[in-house]
Amino acid sequence: MFAPKGIAIVGASERSAWSWQTFGNLRRGNYPHEIHLVNPKGGEIHGQAAVQSLRAVEGRADLAVVLTGPESVPAIMDEAAAADVRNLVVIAAGFGEAGDEGARMERELAARARDLGLQILGPNNLGFINTVTSTYAWTSLMPASLTPGSVGIVSQSGALGIFLMNYLQSRDVPFSHLISVGNETMLTVAEGMDYLLSQDSTKVIALYLEAVRNKDLFIDAAERALAAGVPVVAYKAGRGAVGARVTAAHTGSLAGDDRVYSAVLAQHGVIRVDTIEDLVTTSGLLDAYGELPGHRVGFVTASGAMCGVIGDVSEENGLELPELDDSTVRALREGGLPDFATAQNPLDTTGYLTVNPAIMPMSQEAVARDPNIDILVIHGGVPATPEAAAMYSGGGGEQRKSIDEISPVPVIRMEFFPTERTEFARELRREGKAGFVADSFTRGIPALAKAIRWSELRRSRKSELPAVQPPRLDLDTSTQWSERQAVELLAGHGVPVVPQHLVTSADEAEARAASFDGPMVLKISSADVAHKTDVGGVALGLRTPAEVRAAYERMIADVRAAQPQAEIEGAVLSPMRPEGLDLVVGVVRDQVWGLTLVVGLGGVWVEVLRDSAIRVLPANTAEVRRMFTELKSFPLFEGFRGAPPVDLDHLAEVVSSIANVAAACGDRLEALEVNPLRVRGDKSEVLDALIRWV
Amino acid sequence: MFAPKGIAIVGASERSAWSWQTFGNLRRGNYPHEIHLVNPKGGEIHGQAAVQSLRAVEGRADLAVVLTGPESVPAIMDEAAAADVRNLVVIAAGFGEAGDEGARMERELAARARDLGLQILGPNNLGFINTVTSTYAWTSLMPASLTPGSVGIVSQSGALGIFLMNYLQSRDVPFSHLISVGNETMLTVAEGMDYLLSQDSTKVIALYLEAVRNKDLFIDAAERALAAGVPVVAYKAGRGAVGARVTAAHTGSLAGDDRVYSAVLAQHGVIRVDTIEDLVTTSGLLDAYGELPGHRVGFVTASGAMCGVIGDVSEENGLELPELDDSTVRALREGGLPDFATAQNPLDTTGYLTVNPAIMPMSQEAVARDPNIDILVIHGGVPATPEAAAMYSGGGGEQRKSIDEISPVPVIRMEFFPTERTEFARELRREGKAGFVADSFTRGIPALAKAIRWSELRRSRKSELPAVQPPRLDLDTSTQWSERQAVELLAGHGVPVVPQHLVTSADEAEARAASFDGPMVLKISSADVAHKTDVGGVALGLRTPAEVRAAYERMIADVRAAQPQAEIEGAVLSPMRPEGLDLVVGVVRDQVWGLTLVVGLGGVWVEVLRDSAIRVLPANTAEVRRMFTELKSFPLFEGFRGAPPVDLDHLAEVVSSIANVAAACGDRLEALEVNPLRVRGDKSEVLDALIRWV
Repeated sequence: MFAPKGIAIVGASERSAWSWQTFGNLRRGNYPHEIHLVNPKGGEIHGQAAVQSLRAVEGRADLAVVLTGPESVPAIMDEAAAADVRNLVVIAAGFGEAGDEGARMERELAARARDLGLQILGPNNLGFINTVTSTYAWTSLMPASLTPGSVGIVSQSGALGIFLMNYLQSRDVPFSHLISVGNETMLTVAEGMDYLLSQDSTKVIALYLEAVRNKDLFIDAAERALAAGVPVVAYKAGRGAVGARVTAAHTGSLAGDDRVYSAVLAQHGVIRVDTIEDLVTTSGLLDAYGELPGHRVGFVTASGAMCGVIGDVSEENGLELPELDDSTVRALREGGLPDFATAQNPLDTTGYLTVNPAIMPMSQEAVARDPNIDILVIHGGVPATPEAAAMYSGGGGEQRKSIDEISPVPVIRMEFFPTERTEFARELRREGKAGFVADSFTRGIPALAKAIRWSELRRSRKSELPAVQPPRLDLDTSTQWSERQAVELLAGHGVPVVPQHLVTSADEAEARAASFDGPMVLKISSADVAHKTDVGGVALGLRTPAEVRAAYERMIADVRAAQPQAEIEGAVLSPMRPEGLDLVVGVVRDQVWGLTLVVGLGGVWVEVLRDSAIRVLPANTAEVRRMFTELKSFPLFEGFRGAPPVDLDHLAEVVSSIANVAAACGDRLEALEVNPLRVRGDKSEVLDALIRWV
Repeated sequence: MFAPKGIAIVGASERSAWSWQTFGNLRRGNYPHEIHLVNPKGGEIHGQAAVQSLRAVEGRADLAVVLTGPESVPAIMDEAAAADVRNLVVIAAGFGEAGDEGARMERELAARARDLGLQILGPNNLGFINTVTSTYAWTSLMPASLTPGSVGIVSQSGALGIFLMNYLQSRDVPFSHLISVGNETMLTVAEGMDYLLSQDSTKVIALYLEAVRNKDLFIDAAERALAAGVPVVAYKAGRGAVGARVTAAHTGSLAGDDRVYSAVLAQHGVIRVDTIEDLVTTSGLLDAYGELPGHRVGFVTASGAMCGVIGDVSEENGLELPELDDSTVRALREGGLPDFATAQNPLDTTGYLTVNPAIMPMSQEAVARDPNIDILVIHGGVPATPEAAAMYSGGGGEQRKSIDEISPVPVIRMEFFPTERTEFARELRREGKAGFVADSFTRGIPALAKAIRWSELRRSRKSELPAVQPPRLDLDTSTQWSERQAVELLAGHGVPVVPQHLVTSADEAEARAASFDGPMVLKISSADVAHKTDVGGVALGLRTPAEVRAAYERMIADVRAAQPQAEIEGAVLSPMRPEGLDLVVGVVRDQVWGLTLVVGLGGVWVEVLRDSAIRVLPANTAEVRRMFTELKSFPLFEGFRGAPPVDLDHLAEVVSSIANVAAACGDRLEALEVNPLRVRGDKSEVLDALIRWV
């Protein structure tokens, strides 16, 4: 598909903009194989003799770019199969994105393709570009020439590609492939990733995502990319409600819950960026530098205002700027940094630079050699013209080695304000005479922070045990369960739960109560009662067997009165536990991603602030442990107001064991929720739980 | 200062980069008056005869640009005064920003200037540019030529100016003034704003801020700008701890608490932007469109991916995108929008545009005429070259009127990815043949949202009563007060407080308790006890006179044991109130801005989430009311879990009355804090308060 030896343009016509654009792109890109124009009327098109049918190119084309309307596509597919043209780019709109009738047509298209042994890219896309093989199978506008690069791009929007190509050039981020997948009827983003991973040219994969259709291959490809050291950077549209509605109309797919997407991407090492511009900056930075060696960053600039911006943006993005080592401060002073300049990180060489330009390379080198610095960021661009380049290297500095040659750590350039790279500037970098410029500090620092986190995740992953899928339990899911049954299931599989005793009469309640020391809790046990407190189904702080007896009698009567139809199996008697942090731990089935684990702190945290962390299962214990630190309420876990700090390792084990029980429940599990899991220091206990079957 | 008729460059020299840059800038800018070069050695400099002293230019220069080191500045000032050159730009560094000795020199500089009747811009700055009068009194690098514009810029960083000028050109945001204020020894940002407001050329004021030194003039200028319809847009550095440290070193000033800055700026209509790039986009947008007529925005694009980005960014920035009216949907269908395109806002005309380009202007006009739309945003740039312009207007569309001419609402252009405006493109806009491009959607939408909010603030301000400064109270502040005294002060000035009775013996406590119905609270009363609960100084839920008696005896004994030196005036008996929302209302003195009002919800909200709203006093009641809606905990005010919704008008009155008492306390007030103010529905009551005197 992506490196065809011979291409046929089906629906070629002088009058079609699609036709002359596609043909022109392939020609201008110096496509090294034959281009065939197919039109039933034959004749000369774009100055070349056309053939009347795909049959005429049998054996001479691997790919057909189909420019016709949706109705003629099935017949063209038959011809393609007959002519052994196995790959089709179908650009026609009016399929799944256009409503029910279109969706039916698209299903038929895919079925026919499978029957005929064809691969389809699209429909409703703009084609693809492979700069490595000079294959510009692109049906719309594009720059006249492209430099082959190593960023592979898969996009669920074709129009994005048109604009993205110019922006990539202006930022000097050359790409290897740009694949517009359209409605993804056969080839989805995941297949695109899979293909790119198979190509030696791929150093970074960049994605424009609206929804993931082939989730298993997507996760698999993401994990293989992480293992192979190929960063995957994704911009995902549809973050908010408005966005989701809009993209649904666009691709005919339902965007899943965006927070689940965020969780999945992070969990599998995919770097999610906040803006479409950041997709380019972050991909470009990772393309230029690959895995970064550490997280401590030193900055050298020529302005205090830059330092202010750097400080602010770094803090927002969690970048660590260590203090300069004493040896570095000495080197700076000895090298001529004036007294009115403060020797700190970020370093401002001050306007004294105008008097003595040599303090800039001296300062860069001093900070690069600082023992506490893993990465050096300098302020700098690339000369846009030969004249600027001459000025740049002027002043007798020609023999001086560049900071890139001297520095023991990676050197990244950022600008105060973003500027475009000219063709001259791009050529300088291709010749190795200029470094990569990671946009402005505003964009470059977030990109750097993400690249650092990706590098650290990659390293830490090597020492983590993979998550395991627990063996399936054999459970009776034919009727809904009571909460007692849910708690017992957890208890039976190693989850710590509060002792609970089912009592079925007032006598039994009283007798059982006699064996308890402290205050007790009595709760109704019934699969039919959803909100126990609302119907008088909970009694707290019972102190004596007599109180328990009275509570039992009152509770049964109250619940009977409120829900006469409810089947009541009795009540559950438990000891009342001291206060602690009450966590909500839920495993729920997501439409797109399957079982997801949700953890949050109860009360206002979950109810008002929606403070929760999400992972898709399976997730290993290290991953579960990271969930707590993501919560806004995390300070409460660290020992707030004299409470003992929570033992996060222990808690991660307990939450993992709950997740494992849920995962073992099988396909009929709709939700398993523990509410609360009471946590205090290194103890945690399930106080209540529920299970719902589909 | 900013429009001098005659300029002297003092310290002119062939060998000084500052000198040839300054002279070159003035020449290239076609400065229309005399330029004098001053050097004690005389001779020819930059091809022009130099004079040996400022004395030689008496009557022929209004401004001296002083390029010498800090030591020679005092003597030059004497000469300037003698020669009646009243305005000096002093670029030398090594003053206040360089430590104690520099700060002393700077104080002497300012004192001397005042004695001699001189104005100084700087020191430690780069000069200024006035494009309206062609005065490029700029000592560093700058673009060869500038188009006069209407954005006035004041910057606390000179280096920023260098880079900003190029970026402003690339975004086609021409400026009228760029003033680098350096250390602000005499002319601060506020004086700069004041000057710009006096100029007819000023449509927008843009600020780069690190700290505000002249707060009264700053607030006054901001308010006058708002009243005059001149938006002030500010980027403030030093948001986080790192940033604050860095900028302190840069300008020798302590950046105040950044959250207070945010509050002050918002309160006085100054638009705070998040990035330095946003300063340009937002200023440019307001320069091009001024006050916007409403807040409902319609978008027309050529891509679903753009719609996704627009939806996401709009939601994050609180932009309202109304549904399209039925009449608009009909117009779109009749105009040729294909069936597979969804008629919604944001509107995607789809790739069908390639087949029928006319659907784009048709769609833009239809959405512009939608009765629910106040502002139209279209996807578009400006042709970069004559060739592109020819293509742009090709296809026989020349006679068609542009959307800018037809639209009944403002039309704003944004791009998918940002591009630079060429000289050709800027010329097109100057000729009225192209509109303003507000960068990419990523930057343009936040700028638009801020411009809309500024426009709405301006309109709503017209109907609000101004805040008043209450008359000063005559209070004995010679010793610290007990909490009882603080509560009584509030009660005495119209603030609702819980009834409280000072009792000074167990007998009195018991007797007083007899008059109460419900449960009671007893609290120790002493100016010396800071943390009452820690020393047994609070007893809750007392039910009978006997319980109150016992509590009194135990409390006095406990507090005496814990703090033997504390002077105890007795205990305060109050009725215990039902639960509600417990607010913290504090008035504290900020180093920079004076008394600030802080409001937050107690508990985890303030303690863990730092959920608070801030205003500088005086603030009117409407402003105080807005504080509650800014809180993350605001959902709790709206009637959470069955509680009655809080009457915000009433609450704003109560909080304003607390703020008024604090403001009336005079300069010795360090803090007045109510904790809690218990709120339930339309009732609120101070349960406890404290006052601290300086």
